[in-house]
Amino acid sequence: MINLRIPGPTPIPEQVLEASSRQMINHRGPEFKEILLRTTKQLQELFVTTNDLLILTASGTGAMEAAVVNTLSPGDRVLVISIGVFGERLAQLPRTYGADVQVLSVEYGKAVDPEEVRKALQADPAIKTVLITHNETSTGVTNDLESVAKIVKGEFDKLLIVDAVSSIGSIACPVDEWKLDVVASGSQKGWMSPPGLAFVSMSPTAWRASEKATMPRFYFDLAAAKKYLERGQNPWTPAISVFYALDAALPMMLEEGLQNIFDRHARLARMARDGAKELGLTLFADEAVASNTVTSVNAPEGVDVAQLLNLLRTEYDVVLAGGQGSMQGSLFRFGHLGYCSEEDIEQCLDALKSALPRVGYTFAHAKA
Amino acid sequence: MINLRIPGPTPIPEQVLEASSRQMINHRGPEFKEILLRTTKQLQELFVTTNDLLILTASGTGAMEAAVVNTLSPGDRVLVISIGVFGERLAQLPRTYGADVQVLSVEYGKAVDPEEVRKALQADPAIKTVLITHNETSTGVTNDLESVAKIVKGEFDKLLIVDAVSSIGSIACPVDEWKLDVVASGSQKGWMSPPGLAFVSMSPTAWRASEKATMPRFYFDLAAAKKYLERGQNPWTPAISVFYALDAALPMMLEEGLQNIFDRHARLARMARDGAKELGLTLFADEAVASNTVTSVNAPEGVDVAQLLNLLRTEYDVVLAGGQGSMQGSLFRFGHLGYCSEEDIEQCLDALKSALPRVGYTFAHAKA
Repeated sequence: MINLRIPGPTPIPEQVLEASSRQMINHRGPEFKEILLRTTKQLQELFVTTNDLLILTASGTGAMEAAVVNTLSPGDRVLVISIGVFGERLAQLPRTYGADVQVLSVEYGKAVDPEEVRKALQADPAIKTVLITHNETSTGVTNDLESVAKIVKGEFDKLLIVDAVSSIGSIACPVDEWKLDVVASGSQKGWMSPPGLAFVSMSPTAWRASEKATMPRFYFDLAAAKKYLERGQNPWTPAISVFYALDAALPMMLEEGLQNIFDRHARLARMARDGAKELGLTLFADEAVASNTVTSVNAPEGVDVAQLLNLLRTEYDVVLAGGQGSMQGSLFRFGHLGYCSEEDIEQCLDALKSALPRVGYTFAHAKA
Repeated sequence: MINLRIPGPTPIPEQVLEASSRQMINHRGPEFKEILLRTTKQLQELFVTTNDLLILTASGTGAMEAAVVNTLSPGDRVLVISIGVFGERLAQLPRTYGADVQVLSVEYGKAVDPEEVRKALQADPAIKTVLITHNETSTGVTNDLESVAKIVKGEFDKLLIVDAVSSIGSIACPVDEWKLDVVASGSQKGWMSPPGLAFVSMSPTAWRASEKATMPRFYFDLAAAKKYLERGQNPWTPAISVFYALDAALPMMLEEGLQNIFDRHARLARMARDGAKELGLTLFADEAVASNTVTSVNAPEGVDVAQLLNLLRTEYDVVLAGGQGSMQGSLFRFGHLGYCSEEDIEQCLDALKSALPRVGYTFAHAKA
């Protein structure tokens, strides 16, 4: 059994895999309608929102594109808070569609200081919309979204679009309580399902913005998705087998309970960080803001990350992720979101302990 | 066992369903790379093309959006040949992105007369690109794409974009031989796989058009898809379980052989049409151009289509499709593409024979 510990796709529970192999049904028939309405309702419960929630056949990036093109117009001034590779993607997206993008860029490994967000908004009243990554998968950092939202919504009343792809469902992100207008995630993250579906919640404010938004949209038209949802359908043919999976996974999450899920993720993340430090490794992310879904570890001097990951994969059945973008080669990442237990983390740490010396690492600095 | 006979999603063979329930893997790892390269190569073989072929996580409509936004610029004059609901969608798509769309609209149930295409192109030399639906799912009609392509490519040398979503792989559509620039399909049609993946082939001419095309694209950026394909990846997280399915289904198709598949579809379509006529029903589509993947049947007078479909579904385990758009209520459709045998068609016809009198039909006009 492979221990897949990347920040998505994540392992799927046996009963969810089994559910996903059911025979096809009519996507415009009564059975699919039930599944769509049920999963939508359960996702709303797990997003802690009464906002509309749309399920798209796409990746999380597709959901973020939907978030952007449904609420913005070319020329709109937007502030993108970027703390890593996904933050950079978040800036590229509205730029592609002609928005006037200002980037508040934060050093990799750090979270944004909410005070910097306040300053940026004070300095530029033309900003209409703020985009932020809640949990930055590339660096393993979680932004203090609650504080940022208080400023963006409470003090400045701007539209707030959140890439919560690798946080919501695993890390607290109560959409209504924090007044988040548009929030996106993907089925292969904390949702214990295969990739293929993405979720977007839209607040009434976001819908009002969408009425004026002129960026072109067709496949990702959320108003069409909402119209079809009202009759229990998707506008286009959806990834039915991923719906089957989701329909089996979401009740498992509701049974565990959101707070228990958050606590488990916090516990697993602590295990991963402490375990890495005990091996003498250093963490890439500022530990005060380290993510509960993914841990980034600096490559020890003299250790080739690609060689380490390859050894772990081929001889220890452990799959970790490398660094992205300019971080390639300098760190590796350890995903612990969704279907993950203490045993999984222990197995990873044991594998690391055994594999590291084989790629030139010495335990001289290890605390253990 | 439900006999799902709508024009997609289509039934999935047991071994394909089983393959689709495999555990997740790293979408940036060596195993996924093998699957991606293998399925891409097999799809090229089944598209009968050496053109690049990109696999997207989306529906067929997503693939058509990709076809449009990667090759056109706002203001471009395009000719859309529309013979039904999907042809109308084909016109809406480039219009959404600012193209100057001319529609050559053909009466529902008929195919386009290639001579009309010649006239339209002669009348308007500003047209740069032609979009056409090869097989119109809503009416059950197949256009004579070979003849149209000879005119569009051979005589006028325009870019030719083909919605082959419900044809290619089931009905002859040799991409290279017919010089089709952009051709799209979806996994849930003839490919015996669940929905969630869509395919787009791009000719060198299409790539040259894409270099100049300024319609915005991010999720559907085919140049990004090509760049990532070269390293054995998708730009965004793909629907891995649908890839597993496709990886099991495509070898079955190659083993059956394209010509045998086409012959089987022709045989099944004839059975469906003849069977319907023997029941005294009339066909909606002009039989000379009737589709080999979907048969449209006129609702007999006095028969409520919704009631008929409901009865078939609940008491005969047969799922047929109703009419789309303005055809709702006036016809029903019978899908026979992908994983479909003579027995499936017989079962449907038997069910119809038994169900029809129960919803007020009399066999007075039946030949049988």
